[in-house]
Parts: sequence; C-alpha cells; structure tokens
Amino acid sequence: MLDLSLEVLLQTAARIIPAVHRTPVLTSQSLNRRFGRELFFKCENFQRGGAFKIRGATNAVGMIGPATVSRGVATHSSGNHGAALALAADASGIACHVVMPRNSVRSKVEAVQAYGAKVTFCAPTMASRQETLDAIVAQTGATVVHPYNDEHVIAGQATATMELLADAPRLDAVIVPIGGGGLAAGATLAARHTAPQVQVFAAEPAGADDAMRSFAVGRLEPVGSPETIADGLRASLGDKPFAILQQGLKAVVTVSESAIVEAMRLVWQRMKIVIEPSAAVPLAALLEERIDTTPNRVGLILSGGNVDLDALPW
Amino acid sequence: MLDLSLEVLLQTAARIIPAVHRTPVLTSQSLNRRFGRELFFKCENFQRGGAFKIRGATNAVGMIGPATVSRGVATHSSGNHGAALALAADASGIACHVVMPRNSVRSKVEAVQAYGAKVTFCAPTMASRQETLDAIVAQTGATVVHPYNDEHVIAGQATATMELLADAPRLDAVIVPIGGGGLAAGATLAARHTAPQVQVFAAEPAGADDAMRSFAVGRLEPVGSPETIADGLRASLGDKPFAILQQGLKAVVTVSESAIVEAMRLVWQRMKIVIEPSAAVPLAALLEERIDTTPNRVGLILSGGNVDLDALPW
Repeated sequence: MLDLSLEVLLQTAARIIPAVHRTPVLTSQSLNRRFGRELFFKCENFQRGGAFKIRGATNAVGMIGPATVSRGVATHSSGNHGAALALAADASGIACHVVMPRNSVRSKVEAVQAYGAKVTFCAPTMASRQETLDAIVAQTGATVVHPYNDEHVIAGQATATMELLADAPRLDAVIVPIGGGGLAAGATLAARHTAPQVQVFAAEPAGADDAMRSFAVGRLEPVGSPETIADGLRASLGDKPFAILQQGLKAVVTVSESAIVEAMRLVWQRMKIVIEPSAAVPLAALLEERIDTTPNRVGLILSGGNVDLDALPW
Repeated sequence: MLDLSLEVLLQTAARIIPAVHRTPVLTSQSLNRRFGRELFFKCENFQRGGAFKIRGATNAVGMIGPATVSRGVATHSSGNHGAALALAADASGIACHVVMPRNSVRSKVEAVQAYGAKVTFCAPTMASRQETLDAIVAQTGATVVHPYNDEHVIAGQATATMELLADAPRLDAVIVPIGGGGLAAGATLAARHTAPQVQVFAAEPAGADDAMRSFAVGRLEPVGSPETIADGLRASLGDKPFAILQQGLKAVVTVSESAIVEAMRLVWQRMKIVIEPSAAVPLAALLEERIDTTPNRVGLILSGGNVDLDALPW
C-alpha cells in the first residue's frame, strides 16, 4: 500500500490546485440555533462537476504513466465519480469510458455525457458493474480509475477535509457521508496528519449500512441491494478505504431515509443551497442524534449538489 | 426629498453593517460560457431573511425617532419586505404588523410569522393593501415602513449594489429586478455615486410591466392585476424610486414567464444555489437578449431565495 503520509497529501493538494475549486465553508445562524452547535459546511456541491469527486479523479489521472495514459481511462460510477473522471480526462485530452447502473440519476448520466465520456449502462449490482468494466478495459487498454478503492483517489479526496480543517479551525468533529469510503478514508487521513484532536465520523443510510456492519465485525460485509435515496452512497466499502478507516475513524452511524430528506430540505431552505441526498446524510446524523459525543464545533462535508430537479424527494 | 448623496449612502452602509450579511459575489464558469460574458452574481438569497430587504428595513427602523418607535412598525408586503421588517423590529424589540395579499407564497407568510410579526391578510390589490394597512395604523399608532416608496429604505437597498460594485470591479453593467423600485433606485444611486461608468438596467416580468410603461410615457402607470410567477415583483413602481430612476437608469426591459423559469432552473442547476423567481429575472433578460448593448462584465443581483419547495415552477 502506498504511503499516504502528510507529505503525500500535501503533494496531492499542490498537484490538483489548478483543476479544482477551493470551495467555501459556510455557516448558518438558524441551523446553529436549530442544532445547538456550531456547524461548518464544506460546500463540495459548488465543486467542479458538482461534487468532491474531481479531487480524486484529477489526482489519479495525473499519476498515470506516459506510456499508458494515451489509451484513456475507464471506471464504474453511479454518477459523480464518472462525471469527475470525464472532466479530468477531458482536461488531459484522453478518452474516458464510464459504466453506470441503469437506475442512475438522469442528470448525472447527462453530465457524464456532456463532459465527453462514453457511457455504458449495466445492472445495478456491483457484479454487473465490474463485468461490464472488465470488457471495456479488455477492448481499449484504458486504465481503470476506481471510484474509491484507489490510493491516489483517496489522497485526492483527503484534500476536501484538509481544506475544511484549515478554514474552520478548532473543530471538535467532522462528519462525512460514507459509500465506497474514499471521502471518509481521506477525511481520516487529513485529520490524523493535520488535526489529530478532531474526531471523524462517517454517516450512511440505514438502507446501505455495509460500513457499519463491516466495522462491527472487523471485515468487509458488502451490501447486496442497497435501498436509499442517497444514490451516491449505494456502493459498498472498498478494502483500501476500510484499512485506512480502521486506523482512525471514530464511528460509523446510520440514518433513516426520512431524516435524509428532512436534512436535505433544511439545507435548501435555510442555507439556500442545492445539495443532493447523499450530501444531507451527515446533517441527518445530527437530526437523529446519532453522534453520541457532544462536540460543539462540527464540520460537515456537503459532498455534492447533483440532483434531478424534476424528481425531488418531497 | 431627502438628499441621497454618497455621504448618506456611506452612513447608511455603516449603520446597517451589524444587522446584515455582506453576501458573496459568485461566478460560474459554465454560465459564463453559456452567455458569452463574465457574470457576477450578488447573492442576496444568502442575506438574513433570505432577501435584500433587510437592508432597507433595518435602515428605516434605525431612523425612527425615539418618541414614536415604541409604538412599533407596520407595512404591506408580498413577503420579503414583511419578513425583513419583522426581523428588524425584533432586533429593536418593537412590535411589527404586516399586511399580506392572500395569494402570498406560503413560506413567506410563515417566515414573517416566525420572526414574530402579526400578519393580516388582504385582497391581492394595491388598494386593499393600503386600506388594510391604514386601519392597523389608526389602531396602533405604528410607523409605516413602506416596502420601497421610502428614502431610508432606498438608501438601505443601495448598499447591495455598492457591495457588488466594490467586490466585482470594472463592471460594464448591472441588471436588477424591478417591482416597486427600491432595489433599482438604490442601484442607480450606488452606480452614480461610486461607479458612474456602469450602466444600470432594470428587468421586470412582461406580466407586471408597469415600470417599462411608466418610463415610456414619463409618468407612473401602475399595473392593475399583475400576472407573474415572480411574486416579489408584483407591486407597482413607487413615485420616489421613479424620480431617482429617471435620473440614471439606462433602461427597463421585460421578460417572459418561461424565461424566468428557465433562468431560475439554470441558476439552481449550474450554481447549486436556491433563488426565487424574482431573482431570476435579470438572467432571464440575458436569456432573451433584452440588453441591447453588449456589456462584457455584467453584475446581476440575485434578490432573494425564498421559495416554496413544494410548489416549484417546473
């Protein structure tokens, strides 16, 4: 396994600066009152491509050797990683192939296509995703950039939490959504290397609770058919993020679907910003009081803002 | 008429600083590409109370003499000014009465009530608004703070454009929505005193086009029954804003309802921020190519973000 040291994280941050936005950290007096804490929202919904994923994708593309990069890149993704890889590939002038489950959010499929990638649909299972991707790689020789089970991707995602910790100093805790685990593993690394006193929590939908079950038994327990509105969190935890998370994550908590919708609506109404259901999961964890310590200053990563405006969940 | 000099505007800005947010000016690469210009969005949707109105309301409440302020304040408003006056009155510990048309957006009525004001409903006409307000004033002795036909309110609203001109230097033009005219008159004053080379345009729905007609004939031509989704722009232009606008506004342009919805959706999708229909009217003017000069660097005021999430126009 790559050494994901502070030095690697700082090199990663320097490498991706030209390609990503330094997104703002917003606060809301009315939400602070509502929750009785000071909340700091890292707005990756404002990120290029509408989600944090461009960080990892840009880093991964940048690390491909010159001999193979010309054959392009390929991945499977329910949406945001696919869009991010398409953007990163476009910036490097290489081809990009994205395998997407047939139940992907329409706006995310359209975004991937708009950024110039070739989309291939598959069944909404991890097995079908992998099989379809393997066939494309066999045919094209493209380098696979996994959405989360890749150290370069994890290092890229870590920069979101590094920025949050720098812009909102003296946090007691950070809560991030967890699906495949790239963002959460990056958050754990960022805290360990730059603010070790900060507790990192990962929140996931109860209908896709493989991370909680995996932590409970100490080995990966993939989810069969995830059922959640949080389409960005349907993937199962990867072994590389899991290994990192086991060294530093404080806890995994789960939230109900109704709390996700309520939290999403609260952010739209009070903060006047558009976030997708996955991004609402950390606030949903506070709504349902799943964080059993009582941190006062809490950072939350709003992971993305790609929603289908014609199919809102209320 | 009050002298709305640069000195008055600067004193106003200093007076209201503690009570208002300095809202950000956001940009969007994808919207710049889409429109072939550099656009600068002044995000008053992030303002306290969800709209620019807190600026004028705070200034007006601050200018009421000590002998009368204890009797409270009263106004009529389709929503945002009412909420703003309620907030400003609450900050000063005085009572607030708000007359609202029965067809006001539900979320706006709830906001006014949540901020502690007493709401009285009326028919959706200017005559009914005035009549209902007169009765409340006769009963309570409250000071009327008109939503726009008031120099102190206009001076307060001018601070939004002053901040935009400071934070987005070298603009060629500013486009603001126009209903009663407070924001537009303030924009004209701000440009005249701080950046006279900037052309100020006002945009309104074709279904509430009294400002365009008033400018065409040189006298106020109130609209009878405005029909537009832009609920914040249904009021007719006041004589005090009109007098100021006649001294500096470049032009009034009108936009269709479909352009308002399309512009609103574009901002939600591309910028990931929540704006109300009225706030989309300036971008709608660019969509419909109503600005006949070709300014490159254009500031747009996103006037508010108070929408009913259960009744979106798409």
